[in-house]
Amino acid sequence: MCLAGTAETVRSHRHEGPVLSRRRFLAAGGAAAALAALPAPALARSTRHRHTQDLTHVFRDGFPVYTGNPPSRRTLVTIPNDGFYAQEWTFAEHSGTHLDAPGHFIEGNRLADELPPDELVRPLAVVDISKRAAVNPDAEVRVADLVAFERRHGRIPRRAVVCMNSGWDSRVGDRASYLNPDASGVFHFPGFSLEAVEWLLDRRDIQGIGVDTSSLDFGPSTTFVVHTTLLGAERYGLEGVANLGRVPANRATVFVGLIPWEEGSGGPCRVIARW
Amino acid sequence: MCLAGTAETVRSHRHEGPVLSRRRFLAAGGAAAALAALPAPALARSTRHRHTQDLTHVFRDGFPVYTGNPPSRRTLVTIPNDGFYAQEWTFAEHSGTHLDAPGHFIEGNRLADELPPDELVRPLAVVDISKRAAVNPDAEVRVADLVAFERRHGRIPRRAVVCMNSGWDSRVGDRASYLNPDASGVFHFPGFSLEAVEWLLDRRDIQGIGVDTSSLDFGPSTTFVVHTTLLGAERYGLEGVANLGRVPANRATVFVGLIPWEEGSGGPCRVIARW
Repeated sequence: MCLAGTAETVRSHRHEGPVLSRRRFLAAGGAAAALAALPAPALARSTRHRHTQDLTHVFRDGFPVYTGNPPSRRTLVTIPNDGFYAQEWTFAEHSGTHLDAPGHFIEGNRLADELPPDELVRPLAVVDISKRAAVNPDAEVRVADLVAFERRHGRIPRRAVVCMNSGWDSRVGDRASYLNPDASGVFHFPGFSLEAVEWLLDRRDIQGIGVDTSSLDFGPSTTFVVHTTLLGAERYGLEGVANLGRVPANRATVFVGLIPWEEGSGGPCRVIARW
Repeated sequence: MCLAGTAETVRSHRHEGPVLSRRRFLAAGGAAAALAALPAPALARSTRHRHTQDLTHVFRDGFPVYTGNPPSRRTLVTIPNDGFYAQEWTFAEHSGTHLDAPGHFIEGNRLADELPPDELVRPLAVVDISKRAAVNPDAEVRVADLVAFERRHGRIPRRAVVCMNSGWDSRVGDRASYLNPDASGVFHFPGFSLEAVEWLLDRRDIQGIGVDTSSLDFGPSTTFVVHTTLLGAERYGLEGVANLGRVPANRATVFVGLIPWEEGSGGPCRVIARW
């Protein structure tokens, strides 16, 4: 009866706006009453992880892309004119924080709508090379980095997603800094080395890799061997991952919310870590 | 050394294709050896949930939308011509399996890039009205359904996402069946009643609701009161959810992989349940 009474208070004050209603509800002890009334299993389900970290950049007009046109949007309808608001988007699949499907480089390999959901919820390992990348934009994740990582943080679990944190995500607002082309147009940003990716595939049976830059291969690559090796093994890559410095090195679970784009070569995804 | 030897086998057989390599790896006992070598925390992390269920329709060309143009795609580059494959997409935000942000109907309320990630990983409750919907396309989730649900499946947790399973997801391949317009163009498909949504907001402090149809309100609605009430409370709605008959009624966690579309009224999302 107490809770029902509180609910009535919320309802009668709804015209004051939802945030105020929430505050009133909380102030009235409604949340505490609701929590106390919850059976234990439901409570455990909603609080199993204590930390949630977004690893996704806002998908925006003009997001810097490796090649082609950046994303664009336009307003379709507005609340004053139409009663509701909506936009339209146009973009190439490799825009924003996104996934490279195996079929992006390898004919016949799996596409975005063929990756099963259990491949999208995996252990996360984050290898930090940001100090080296700060002085060398062509820095690469090497096998020695992986060995040192495991010595410090424990073994990389089977079918993990292994991400490079180079600190490059802070540059995403400025195309010239993010892609970092030299006078002849060659990009300079960090990436995985071929040796590191072969080691992860062969020794750790990973599910995928991720980078906070625009490409799995480092900027100057002309062969894209990391792409072809990883995607050739039916594993996936994440590009443009954000906030990798804010998650534990080898303790989180990553959720890769890839839209199942029809016959997609990959495409935008929401990436969230929990631990 | 045994594991390293196995890895060499995988590498030397890579040209046979990854699936075969995986099989060879498994047959060689590599997976068992890898599992045995993993420390306990990493193993627990990767196997915490036993079941993963996709709740997302393939995002496709021509997906039936409530209003406006359906999504479209075109091929930008191909592997034979360009060395890699990619598509371009154009669509309105309310296409495919998607989220309605609070600002979709309510000026000043939060947009797609303002929903924090902890609101996107929530307990899931699925209320099944498919038997009633099979004989009455205008069926609605009522308070009596919620009371009966809790009597059978336990209390709906605080800040859960409560979804209606009307069985409508199987119609998604056929626009006429999914939107089900009558001779005068009025749609007929199930949805939530206003009373049920008020009850969930006031008594259960939900995070959002979801439907397997094209709209939170039932087809004939002209007032969209479920939209305005839910979104007015800064809660979100999911539309076009799939496979809700394949998850437990009140035991799963749902991950709502909404792309953080800049100033988005909502937009496509990957929805995955785990339990």
